[in-house]
Amino acid sequence: MASAMREGGRLVVVGGVAAGMSAASRARRLRPDIEIVAVEKGDDVSYGACSLPYFIADVVPERDALIAHDAAFFRRERRIDVRLRTEAMALDPRKRTVTLRASEGEQALAFDALVIATGARAVRVPLPGADLDGVFTLRTLEDGEALKRRVSQGARRATIVGGGYIGLEMAEALAARGLAVSVVELLPSLLSTYDADMSELVERKLLDKGVEVRKGTKVEGFEPGADGRSVGCVLAGGQRLPADLVLVAVGIRPASELARAAGIETGPSGAIKVDARQVTSEPAVLAAGDCCEAMHVVTRRPAWIPLGTTANKQGRIAGENAVGGNRAFGGIAGTNATKVFDLEVAGTGLSSEAARREGLDADSVRIAAPSRSPAYPGASPIAVKLVFERGSGRLLGGQMVGREGVAKRIDTIAAALHAGMTVSQLADVDMSYAPPFSPVWDPVLVAASEAQKKTGR
Amino acid sequence: MASAMREGGRLVVVGGVAAGMSAASRARRLRPDIEIVAVEKGDDVSYGACSLPYFIADVVPERDALIAHDAAFFRRERRIDVRLRTEAMALDPRKRTVTLRASEGEQALAFDALVIATGARAVRVPLPGADLDGVFTLRTLEDGEALKRRVSQGARRATIVGGGYIGLEMAEALAARGLAVSVVELLPSLLSTYDADMSELVERKLLDKGVEVRKGTKVEGFEPGADGRSVGCVLAGGQRLPADLVLVAVGIRPASELARAAGIETGPSGAIKVDARQVTSEPAVLAAGDCCEAMHVVTRRPAWIPLGTTANKQGRIAGENAVGGNRAFGGIAGTNATKVFDLEVAGTGLSSEAARREGLDADSVRIAAPSRSPAYPGASPIAVKLVFERGSGRLLGGQMVGREGVAKRIDTIAAALHAGMTVSQLADVDMSYAPPFSPVWDPVLVAASEAQKKTGR
Repeated sequence: MASAMREGGRLVVVGGVAAGMSAASRARRLRPDIEIVAVEKGDDVSYGACSLPYFIADVVPERDALIAHDAAFFRRERRIDVRLRTEAMALDPRKRTVTLRASEGEQALAFDALVIATGARAVRVPLPGADLDGVFTLRTLEDGEALKRRVSQGARRATIVGGGYIGLEMAEALAARGLAVSVVELLPSLLSTYDADMSELVERKLLDKGVEVRKGTKVEGFEPGADGRSVGCVLAGGQRLPADLVLVAVGIRPASELARAAGIETGPSGAIKVDARQVTSEPAVLAAGDCCEAMHVVTRRPAWIPLGTTANKQGRIAGENAVGGNRAFGGIAGTNATKVFDLEVAGTGLSSEAARREGLDADSVRIAAPSRSPAYPGASPIAVKLVFERGSGRLLGGQMVGREGVAKRIDTIAAALHAGMTVSQLADVDMSYAPPFSPVWDPVLVAASEAQKKTGR
Repeated sequence: MASAMREGGRLVVVGGVAAGMSAASRARRLRPDIEIVAVEKGDDVSYGACSLPYFIADVVPERDALIAHDAAFFRRERRIDVRLRTEAMALDPRKRTVTLRASEGEQALAFDALVIATGARAVRVPLPGADLDGVFTLRTLEDGEALKRRVSQGARRATIVGGGYIGLEMAEALAARGLAVSVVELLPSLLSTYDADMSELVERKLLDKGVEVRKGTKVEGFEPGADGRSVGCVLAGGQRLPADLVLVAVGIRPASELARAAGIETGPSGAIKVDARQVTSEPAVLAAGDCCEAMHVVTRRPAWIPLGTTANKQGRIAGENAVGGNRAFGGIAGTNATKVFDLEVAGTGLSSEAARREGLDADSVRIAAPSRSPAYPGASPIAVKLVFERGSGRLLGGQMVGREGVAKRIDTIAAALHAGMTVSQLADVDMSYAPPFSPVWDPVLVAASEAQKKTGR
């Protein structure tokens, strides 16, 4: 938005989870005078979807603990007109109107600016039996509650279709609830944003913990059990795998239908195109979160890597710019972390595979170094992989797996990516040393030094 | 060193702890043909002095666990002529000779290049009674063994003179061994490289754990106990504090006498001046580790901040350049971490105090944010302080205190300092999020965002 919103103008936010409520809250902080309407299709706003596996595992027993603030809070404290169970059906960016549908009926609402924060939805596979009782996806709080109910009702054998991070977090969660768990993955390795030599370490952990892993295996459908309505087994790789609970976690897709129908441009992934200020191809419409693209700091090109931190940051910026601000989003490195049993797994930037797909001349090193001084009790190995450009030595990405000290160590590499460092510059960073927390050569330094030797830069 | 070392030339390394053995090892790796002599005054090479508090606490029970490699290893595996209990008495950089003294007598040894890695020594206070039995400093493995012996012989009350990080690590160690511990600090706050508002959090922890803390208190001397030889009490602030063990940990000084006597330039701290290639004012003599200065990445000026990681890095570079290499050291940010009971304490760059001493127009923010997603069990607050330049928003330093996730989170800020980031650029870094390891807004991001609001940059 180039111009500030008129006094008493109206901002409409579509979607009330991470990006949406961040946008609405930021706008309110900057502009006490305007009207802010936030519409949410579901029953709740502002919940932590990333905590759903821990809710199902009973690590977080209460659903309300997942909700940062409820609708009443936003209405009362931030004077945001939150409308639950309300869907935005159509959008006219030129006339600046949005059509809302709730149980009371449809309403056309005029706006001065609108933020689309419709998020993403779980991919549903069009397979025979996919609508059987007991076949779940996990995206919303409602999904999580339904799945947890099934577990509590005595599910015993679970099959998880998809070995991405949600699949693996759920493998841990369901194993913790006492279920026998199988993971079926179509690709030849788990965790496809990681290189196979790193995801293999995670796979080994799953096997250690009694989780069955079937890679390179296609799921053909689901068959009912004795009652004829509930899932009884999964047809995969020509076999029948008994299961009374199935989680389909084969990925998500941007929920960009509203935008597309309104003529707003989307990218190759289907996610909404935005400029650095989160403005779409229509100047009165902004977008934030899982429904839109972001500039990747390594490739310097738009990418679609939906993650909670990005949604929150973009939401704030969209909220600010929707009411006349001029703040730019700093881009993404795709930094992610996950816990798989007692392993921490984290990555940022490009994997070797991703770098090759981007046409970069990528090389890599992989080392293992202890998490603490070897003299100090409890040290465990951390595997670090660094990916870098062969000629220039420019750092392209990093991946780590270990039992401790991984999830936040990745941020050092993320900062280096944002700064455009070479591996030598990363090797120069003065990192902390204390025997309980690190060897004198931090694992990241060991990896960067190895890369430096290989590239000379 | 501009020129490569002649074939079969001789490198002498003076000092065999971190920097010295790193230098000797690196030189051997690059040059199988040359002769390498490493002289060490003490009984051991290559030990981890930073682990001494854990050795005394019995967390690391065996002294040998502190020794990365012994002299026999270096002789056998790396063909380094390690000479223990051998002191370098004099150095002639022009004639390229060094005079060594061992029990067998003195010897003049010619060299092509020499690396000074003499480290630092503990400051001994010239106070009455400072030579009583039971008054210790802690710098070498011998110091650590003597102190541990005293503890095992039944010391019950310890006074630690000096509230720096060695003092506090030892307060924890001695408390773990069952001693009643007092810390006496001359300055008005502990941990002088931290700002008082951060070190106060650490002080509170000491008090919680039953450690007595006396700040702004001058130690006037030590009095013998009943036997007339051993320490019985500490005279401090006009009071008599009973103590049968005293650790004087009031700082260290660079052991640069050999260099100074040879006419090699030293800086205001007394540490040896070196260029980026670790070469001293004499071209055939290099220096590395606690005995020399290093370029500070924030001030861009030489500084003396002796730390183990720096010693290891500089040692490698000095070893490489001594035999004809041309590698530059990337500078220091003074990144440090320490464990004080169940707290992690870490800092990098300049404190507010240090920034003001440097004449910078410094501002700061301090926030507290949880270590994990608030929904996830076990979250505890992390206090983060960021120091930045008022006009430019340039990041100058960071400090953190918390129960988990602090020691290595500091490295993200260290990387930002190396890259010369502003607080806004730090706020843009795509940091990892997963409920067990971080809230969606990482504490570092929360602090950087606050700083951004204050500075606008």
